[in-house]
Amino acid sequence: MDKPVILVTNDDGINAPGLIRLTEIVRSIGKVSVVAPEHSMSGTSHAITARNPLRLRLIDKEDGYEKYACNGTPVDCMKLGEQIVLRRKPDLLVSGINHGSNAAINILYSGTMAAVLESTIVEVPSIGFSLSDYSMNADFSPCEKYIRLIIDKVLENGLPQDVCLNVNIPAVNSDEIKGIKVCRQAHSRWVEKYDERKDPANRDYYWLTGVFELGDNEEDTDEWALRNKYVSVVPVHFDLTAHHAISKIKKWNMNV
Amino acid sequence: MDKPVILVTNDDGINAPGLIRLTEIVRSIGKVSVVAPEHSMSGTSHAITARNPLRLRLIDKEDGYEKYACNGTPVDCMKLGEQIVLRRKPDLLVSGINHGSNAAINILYSGTMAAVLESTIVEVPSIGFSLSDYSMNADFSPCEKYIRLIIDKVLENGLPQDVCLNVNIPAVNSDEIKGIKVCRQAHSRWVEKYDERKDPANRDYYWLTGVFELGDNEEDTDEWALRNKYVSVVPVHFDLTAHHAISKIKKWNMNV
Repeated sequence: MDKPVILVTNDDGINAPGLIRLTEIVRSIGKVSVVAPEHSMSGTSHAITARNPLRLRLIDKEDGYEKYACNGTPVDCMKLGEQIVLRRKPDLLVSGINHGSNAAINILYSGTMAAVLESTIVEVPSIGFSLSDYSMNADFSPCEKYIRLIIDKVLENGLPQDVCLNVNIPAVNSDEIKGIKVCRQAHSRWVEKYDERKDPANRDYYWLTGVFELGDNEEDTDEWALRNKYVSVVPVHFDLTAHHAISKIKKWNMNV
Repeated sequence: MDKPVILVTNDDGINAPGLIRLTEIVRSIGKVSVVAPEHSMSGTSHAITARNPLRLRLIDKEDGYEKYACNGTPVDCMKLGEQIVLRRKPDLLVSGINHGSNAAINILYSGTMAAVLESTIVEVPSIGFSLSDYSMNADFSPCEKYIRLIIDKVLENGLPQDVCLNVNIPAVNSDEIKGIKVCRQAHSRWVEKYDERKDPANRDYYWLTGVFELGDNEEDTDEWALRNKYVSVVPVHFDLTAHHAISKIKKWNMNV
């Protein structure tokens, strides 16, 4: 089989150490095109750029490898990577390695995972990788073994239709990681508390701060896996329908 | 019972006719606080603002009604509305009326629906309303009867835990609307095609364009309902886990 064509993106931006590490790993597996945001786009979720023109800046190109920075969001990067850079569907999209957890409710805010979902919509096998350490100096070396294994499994087995993977790796030493758990998204939320300040002109402004709150103590969740030093793998899809609620709401009498 | 406290937001911005119409409707039902983006934030999805300070600009305030513009995203508006403007949970959040459909895959890109999901996370009953007409001059009058009915039902029955509603209204005359269908998100995607141009300095740039593609002909979807002149009501949740895929992926041998 020819080497797989792999598209790489992230939301921490083109210079993030996590992206550089992920790129190194996949360059040993396939032909690699990196298209990542010029700057950090953390927390941009599934935002797209429709009102401004998009640009690609070539950074590096050699046989089997090319790297572009893009002025758009992670979702824009995925789309431009497929449509303009590759002009074909990649065989695999990988996003990350995110600096910080995208487990539990964090997936909703994550640009890293939004690129993965966008790629799933166009039927490209797609995986997001995150390390539970927000630091730019995070040690990504424990990730490599698991990233290689999961990519191998996806290339070997494919993924179920419309399903991608949200992989989170605990920030512990390599020899402390106990293995891989396939699990579900934990029920959780951020409890926000705005830091309320006054500017020099005495006008109010607010900084978003928050504390993560886990409302789910079951052992089949990604948070449980991470807290117990497992790599969590959550199969994710883009159908937001609460199917179990359809029959309940049908019982309301809404005939007009 | 006291009048319900209702928080209103959108993604088309504080001056959008759809927001003004929705505000008029809910002012006859409860005490209303509007917190909406200063400018259009269409397509911002679940983005949050953590790196810039947020501000609120008071536009109007009278007994039982207040209106603020915010420099943040729809999700920021919902959070600031709860935490700074109301300093309590509202009894209901409504978002919209969106100028354009948020049915099918559009929900993923929608700031209107992201605000609804964010509000659901903090256990506020929440509804997003959209009219399938992108025009700023859209005729919102057919919406009113259905918006009132659905709000009444939610205030009367509550919503299942962690579930909100994505309501889409077809852009047809009032007397053509056949009724309400409770349904699921249609399987669909946008097939993108970038419009490739050169700027005056001969540098490439790209405009995002796309065509909506429905890959789902079943009659239980929101797209079917809208195309057949029904108002669609999809119960939505924030658990992205593809539960049906967990057992399949567990069968991969990922022991290390």
